[in-house]
Amino acid sequence: MSLMSPSPSGAMGQNLGISSYAIEVNQALLKEDDDLLRQTFLSVFRQHHPQLANKVDVIFALAQAWCMSESDSDFEMLEKRLDALTPDESILVSSAFSQLLNLHNVTEESITARVEKAARLGEVEQATRSTNKSLQRLVNVKGLKPEDIHSALCKQTVGLVFTAHPTQATRQSLLKKYGEIRHAMDRLHNTRLSNYERLECLDEIRSQVQGAWRTDEIRRRKPSPQDESREGLTYFHETIYSGLPVFLRRIDTALKNIGQPMLPLNAKLFSFGAWMGGDRDGNPFVTPDTTRDVVIGARLSAATLLTEQVEKLMYELSMWRATPELKARAQQVQARHAAEGEFLETKKNTYDVVFMSINEPYRLVLSDVRARLQRTKDVLHHCLEHASVNVAEALEADPEAYRDETELLATLHMCYDSLISSGDIHIANSHLLDVLRQVRTFGLYLCKLDIRQESVKHTEAIDAITSYLGLGSYKEWNEEQRMEFLLNELTGKRPLLPPDLPMTPEVADVIGTFRMLAQLPNDSLGAYIISMSHTASDVLAVVLMQKECGMTPMLQVVPLFETLDDLNYAETAMRQLFANPWYFAHINGQQECMIGYSDSGKDAGRLAAAWGLYEVQERLTQVADEFGVHMTLFHGRGGTVGRGGAPAHLAVLSQPPGTIRGTIRVTVQGEVMEQQFGEQESAFHTMDLYTSAVLEATLAPTEQPPKEWRQTMADMARTSCDAYRAVVREDSRFVNFFHSITPVNELGRMNIGSRPAKRRSHGSIDTLRAIPWIFAWTQVRFHLPVWLGVGEALNSMIDAGKLELLQDMFTNWMFFRVTFDMLEMVFAKADPRVVKMYEKALVVEPGLHGFGDELLTKFHDTEQSMLTVMKHSRLLSSSSTAFLQQKLQLRAPYVAPLNILQVSCLKTLRAIEAGKNVDELVPADYKPSEKALALMSRGASKHPFVAGIEDTLIITMKGIASGLKNTG
Amino acid sequence: MSLMSPSPSGAMGQNLGISSYAIEVNQALLKEDDDLLRQTFLSVFRQHHPQLANKVDVIFALAQAWCMSESDSDFEMLEKRLDALTPDESILVSSAFSQLLNLHNVTEESITARVEKAARLGEVEQATRSTNKSLQRLVNVKGLKPEDIHSALCKQTVGLVFTAHPTQATRQSLLKKYGEIRHAMDRLHNTRLSNYERLECLDEIRSQVQGAWRTDEIRRRKPSPQDESREGLTYFHETIYSGLPVFLRRIDTALKNIGQPMLPLNAKLFSFGAWMGGDRDGNPFVTPDTTRDVVIGARLSAATLLTEQVEKLMYELSMWRATPELKARAQQVQARHAAEGEFLETKKNTYDVVFMSINEPYRLVLSDVRARLQRTKDVLHHCLEHASVNVAEALEADPEAYRDETELLATLHMCYDSLISSGDIHIANSHLLDVLRQVRTFGLYLCKLDIRQESVKHTEAIDAITSYLGLGSYKEWNEEQRMEFLLNELTGKRPLLPPDLPMTPEVADVIGTFRMLAQLPNDSLGAYIISMSHTASDVLAVVLMQKECGMTPMLQVVPLFETLDDLNYAETAMRQLFANPWYFAHINGQQECMIGYSDSGKDAGRLAAAWGLYEVQERLTQVADEFGVHMTLFHGRGGTVGRGGAPAHLAVLSQPPGTIRGTIRVTVQGEVMEQQFGEQESAFHTMDLYTSAVLEATLAPTEQPPKEWRQTMADMARTSCDAYRAVVREDSRFVNFFHSITPVNELGRMNIGSRPAKRRSHGSIDTLRAIPWIFAWTQVRFHLPVWLGVGEALNSMIDAGKLELLQDMFTNWMFFRVTFDMLEMVFAKADPRVVKMYEKALVVEPGLHGFGDELLTKFHDTEQSMLTVMKHSRLLSSSSTAFLQQKLQLRAPYVAPLNILQVSCLKTLRAIEAGKNVDELVPADYKPSEKALALMSRGASKHPFVAGIEDTLIITMKGIASGLKNTG
Repeated sequence: MSLMSPSPSGAMGQNLGISSYAIEVNQALLKEDDDLLRQTFLSVFRQHHPQLANKVDVIFALAQAWCMSESDSDFEMLEKRLDALTPDESILVSSAFSQLLNLHNVTEESITARVEKAARLGEVEQATRSTNKSLQRLVNVKGLKPEDIHSALCKQTVGLVFTAHPTQATRQSLLKKYGEIRHAMDRLHNTRLSNYERLECLDEIRSQVQGAWRTDEIRRRKPSPQDESREGLTYFHETIYSGLPVFLRRIDTALKNIGQPMLPLNAKLFSFGAWMGGDRDGNPFVTPDTTRDVVIGARLSAATLLTEQVEKLMYELSMWRATPELKARAQQVQARHAAEGEFLETKKNTYDVVFMSINEPYRLVLSDVRARLQRTKDVLHHCLEHASVNVAEALEADPEAYRDETELLATLHMCYDSLISSGDIHIANSHLLDVLRQVRTFGLYLCKLDIRQESVKHTEAIDAITSYLGLGSYKEWNEEQRMEFLLNELTGKRPLLPPDLPMTPEVADVIGTFRMLAQLPNDSLGAYIISMSHTASDVLAVVLMQKECGMTPMLQVVPLFETLDDLNYAETAMRQLFANPWYFAHINGQQECMIGYSDSGKDAGRLAAAWGLYEVQERLTQVADEFGVHMTLFHGRGGTVGRGGAPAHLAVLSQPPGTIRGTIRVTVQGEVMEQQFGEQESAFHTMDLYTSAVLEATLAPTEQPPKEWRQTMADMARTSCDAYRAVVREDSRFVNFFHSITPVNELGRMNIGSRPAKRRSHGSIDTLRAIPWIFAWTQVRFHLPVWLGVGEALNSMIDAGKLELLQDMFTNWMFFRVTFDMLEMVFAKADPRVVKMYEKALVVEPGLHGFGDELLTKFHDTEQSMLTVMKHSRLLSSSSTAFLQQKLQLRAPYVAPLNILQVSCLKTLRAIEAGKNVDELVPADYKPSEKALALMSRGASKHPFVAGIEDTLIITMKGIASGLKNTG
Repeated sequence: MSLMSPSPSGAMGQNLGISSYAIEVNQALLKEDDDLLRQTFLSVFRQHHPQLANKVDVIFALAQAWCMSESDSDFEMLEKRLDALTPDESILVSSAFSQLLNLHNVTEESITARVEKAARLGEVEQATRSTNKSLQRLVNVKGLKPEDIHSALCKQTVGLVFTAHPTQATRQSLLKKYGEIRHAMDRLHNTRLSNYERLECLDEIRSQVQGAWRTDEIRRRKPSPQDESREGLTYFHETIYSGLPVFLRRIDTALKNIGQPMLPLNAKLFSFGAWMGGDRDGNPFVTPDTTRDVVIGARLSAATLLTEQVEKLMYELSMWRATPELKARAQQVQARHAAEGEFLETKKNTYDVVFMSINEPYRLVLSDVRARLQRTKDVLHHCLEHASVNVAEALEADPEAYRDETELLATLHMCYDSLISSGDIHIANSHLLDVLRQVRTFGLYLCKLDIRQESVKHTEAIDAITSYLGLGSYKEWNEEQRMEFLLNELTGKRPLLPPDLPMTPEVADVIGTFRMLAQLPNDSLGAYIISMSHTASDVLAVVLMQKECGMTPMLQVVPLFETLDDLNYAETAMRQLFANPWYFAHINGQQECMIGYSDSGKDAGRLAAAWGLYEVQERLTQVADEFGVHMTLFHGRGGTVGRGGAPAHLAVLSQPPGTIRGTIRVTVQGEVMEQQFGEQESAFHTMDLYTSAVLEATLAPTEQPPKEWRQTMADMARTSCDAYRAVVREDSRFVNFFHSITPVNELGRMNIGSRPAKRRSHGSIDTLRAIPWIFAWTQVRFHLPVWLGVGEALNSMIDAGKLELLQDMFTNWMFFRVTFDMLEMVFAKADPRVVKMYEKALVVEPGLHGFGDELLTKFHDTEQSMLTVMKHSRLLSSSSTAFLQQKLQLRAPYVAPLNILQVSCLKTLRAIEAGKNVDELVPADYKPSEKALALMSRGASKHPFVAGIEDTLIITMKGIASGLKNTG
């Protein structure tokens, strides 16, 4: 079947599987759980605030009535009701709705997990693909040979890189409570419970809801990189480490179903990386020591997790049949410990090996493994206590410690082969196989730490050297001079770095980092990523720094092209590097480039950014092919929609065909971690999606888009970019409008993420980071940066009579449709009525009045032309998004009151800043809530009334944020 | 209702609850699972030995046919079939049946757990009592006031002491596999599984069965005391530590159901002790260092388990509302760490406290607790590595380490009170309450180690001192001189122990032990038990040794009276001690005595022993009451039936009324550990039984038996004792008969338990330890030591026309009926046909021929008169034992082939020992099994044929042993 055959409804590749029943099933289940959690929360709330609870009921009923009738009369009643609240009531009410939203998300996640389990139990035709399904599809639809699938899987690796998320709104301890609630709900639905146990379950839910309610949901201090790293590691302990081998088993089953052997032991379907503690881009708290701590922390976890598995194996492998060489090894182990017999006293906890008998060869060998793992942990603890110790050498120096997994793997392999050759295949392929696969994937490092730094830091560091050596100022040299200089140094033998170089703290930090990396075990390190890299010299500069600081082997250097200009220039930079024989030999056929979204959305609008990235990937892949280099693209993906957050597999399949060849790396950010790996089920689901998506993209890529589509897309990108900038940059009213209609100025108050917020400014947009920019527009439910400019682009094409073509592109071009499905989702979350409410209440400057309406007409036009192109009568009308639509409907009555409360907080706070003095605003019967008093005791100097308003504001921001994120 | 009203059928106190349906339900379930495991095993067996598998099927079918028809023709066919096996086939067949028996026991345990769960789900009227039930019974049947029950529970403590079991036949790794099989079976029956998961479950069972099958079930080397201790600790990690608080919650529920408040925090329903590593009676491997290691090991586990709980609490207690003093404490913690800021580098893993903010007071306080627990573990590790460090001082010396639980409890209490007073009662009473209760019960020691040593060792130690000091030889002094000497030393100030005393290794070990105990934290030590203690001086000798070696505070000294003579003399010894003002003040109102069964069964027969113990308990309690001392009786209970192993609560309720006053200590031996605490369910069941049994025995003791019953019992004890000795001691044919009909001589070959076996002898019975003596008779299914002499006792009473009285005693005297229920069970397990088979094949001496028949008639007479007294038409005919009867029936076809095989092994081995040379016996086509060869490689010098026969013998012994033990 060629790609061109039109089929009636629904996208390519999605089989007709989403039966309308499956959707109704999910909707019914979601509603059921949503009611349960709401009732539980309300009865907890009622327990502590009986009077207020009734008001919350009525507010909720009014919010529901409004969300359904959308009549102004219902809206006024809701508004009146909320205005009637006293200040400390509004704190509690906003906190209540924020909690209700978090709980609602828990139901969404729990439903997803339930649907997964149901799908795995096969009760529902599942919406997305599973590997089992897609293997069969690949065979009998695409007519591929099962052997090809098998060999493709053997060479396939998906890299998942965990990064801390700057806007992780809900605190870890709250996230944990929601996780517990999810567990309890799954137990509630999936196991046979007596009514006693059912009540114990409902009781468990209740006390977690209560715990969540009584916890201060505002994060009072900033997490350190080590905190972030530790939080990331919990997912390995809880789901990933034990989940991976089970997942690989299912792959074996799927392969067996198409008559193929199981995955070989050296297949590595997944590799795991992390940025926490390695990403120092704009984060001064990440010092060389931080990196060292994080590396050691991860290795300690790896050794601990592995020791647990080895101990289990020691109980299981109690057989006496073994191959001669395993017996020989068992004897060595015994002899070695017998020989150490005479100084028995000192080293205590290994002595029980002495009396294990030789006819348990596996246990002997494994107990030695356990002893060496214990020793490895001792060495690491020692390194932790003495910051000056070189970790790599310390591990190297101790013969009893494991330097890396090679020896360990060999020993386990010997056990495996021994069991198989003595007829215990069944036992070999049970738990031992799982451990072998864990060691293969997680080694003794657990996850590899990427290092990320801004290119300009290296420029300054090298500049400090050249000026000190009197070679001139590296900073003023142009690209050629830099390349010539760098290449000489790289090919030459003379050391460049003088031992007594005077350094500024920044330069010291840069050089200190490289020196530290040279002391760390290199299997714990991933790639060195240069953010904001513009030219080829940025790459060579890092290679040189590694050489000068004695890093062997060197980390591969991954340039991150972030701005539109850099993206357009990326190809030449890479061509220049590949053309250079030294560099070409240096990378020996492997190059990785990172392409990022985040900032690019800010200055060119979404369409231009998406298209820019699309082309960059193609050109980078072409350049690589020219030089016969295997190019791996590293996608930094955003959490919230703002930053192009399509569901994982759609994101993979919407890449340019042929740019994914069995390997891909993607980032998994903060909250996405909890969603994608918080549950065993969702971990399976995530791994399942990536595996099948990458497999498909590798073996059965979609056709190349025809020239005409690309041309249209290019024109649209340019038009939207101009239209976007016309508003954001050239229109002088925009900046003021932006600062008055959104809480962007008040944003600084939420300390989110370990990165320090930039000082607030009335300056231009440029100084704003991407996150607050997107976040601010999300709060007012306008999402302007996402759709601005798209309307003009579409209309210019439609006016050129290309509607047919656009519709064709939407139907048959995965990239185009994913982009517009995302857009549709954003429109579904936007609410112009809320925007108008914000404008009416907050935009006071007379010059800005018409501006809001201009933007709103743009909004509606864009929506209309988008729907025309998609041939949807209204938003989210296709069956594949029916479930999503219901999710949004269920959230709407929770979000609406928060928006209304936020507006009145902003009005009050700005009145205060405008000099209105506080006491006039304080209502007569105001008494500060005990919470406000509790917070004041920490020396906060604000008037408690103001502190209360600020807390309410922060709470509404969190609530709205979690009301608009999309789960699963 | 007074005790005297005759009711138609069934015993006192057992309500009519065991409905015949419940029994049928259990029988149906048991059969179902038994079939499942047998089929699984047979298909595993078939996989490795296809031909032999068919023979096993036929052997099993023939064994079944015989067990049901009991016809000789079926027996011959079975025998012929087994004789037709080649030597290495018979190894495999016996191994197969041994495995089938172990698997069968797994089904019995799993059924018990299922019945428990079902009972808790309330689906079956449960046979035994649960606390919930018995509280209600106590209220509305016995008419007790709920307040009295509440206060009784608050003062009640049941001490459970784990001891290694000398005959633990199945190896730990096999026990683990059976545990896994049990888990899988419970999952199979209790959760909603898809057919995939169902198959995964059956698959899990299969691979465990396979693993068990491929493991050499003969234990090749002796476990060390540290091994035994570590195995004991696994039950705390797996079920006890987490199970106890859940159990206490159910007690709270039960109390709530009778309108009483929950248990107060200081209630201590259970205390846990251990002997592994402390019991040096006849075990030279238990050295002072061993004791030290075990104590440290237990404390490390306690700290580890507690750290896990504290970390969970750190996530849960993220509230900001707290009482002022908790906030103050949180600030201290913060200030303290801030102050330590300047030497930040060295101590790494506590630094994240620095940035935890003050509005999470609970987390701050708890993180400090975690830090101190970590420090405690460091100190303990340090002690492990330097054997010379004084553990108690090391813990004392470090202010950051916890010496014991007092400080820890105070901190947790502060959190508890703070949560309650700030309105978070629901949260206070969830996980925090559990942790408080864990600390209360397990402290930082987890379980207290008892020390046990033989009295004669102290006599020699003191003798070494007195002779060295020229005071004469302590050994030759009579009791007065010893008492006078000991009391002078105890009341005097002069040191007795000279620093340069020349010591034999034994004396050095004794004194070394006391010195070591003085260096250990005393909350890790329980009581000092003197085995084989005869006189009061034995007790004072230990008190003096403690004083001389500087033990403060001293351990309470618990005399163990083991022989009949000592039991009869126990009262005077205690009276002498209580009458002594120094000792009376020393014990300040608390005295514990241990009364043991084991050896007493050997020289007086069961009845005499049971009665002796009954009277001793009364007299010890009376003596204590005279002096106003609270007497706690410590019961050493046996594992297998041989040693009086009644189900726990019947054992409690059959004690003399009034001897249990809220406190009791009992031992839990090896295999009983796995049964009673292997599963969460059975752990609940065990704790439930003990709690309700002790509560009843305390609040509603049964009436005292009338004088006439006691007189009859005393006469029977004397008659049975004489009849017993008439056979065992005076009949010269007995010893030879014993050595030829039982495998007692071959027993030495199984190395079971860490205690070295005595050298084998043809000497008298006296040199034989109790365990082999019982074990040997169990193998031939005769259990002679249990019933010998009972027949004569009963008949002498019946002839005296006291049948009515005996029947009345059986019906209305708990002690009498439990003794005879036990006896009935033993008869149900005995099989005279098997005895005859052993006699025909092994008793060759002509002089012994009639002897066997004499004993068999005694056997049948005893059985008949026992049944007449019990008014049972045949064995196990009452409904309360119907389930048990079915268990025995299901086991019978597995045990029969093992007996037949054992006989032919013994015949062959004895022929070899009688000089017949091996080659004549080796069948023509004999080739050694690979297992035999594998074992030979360990330098065993035997002819492989003989080695094979011995292994078969050992396997049959294990199989028969596990076929006759009673589970749950």
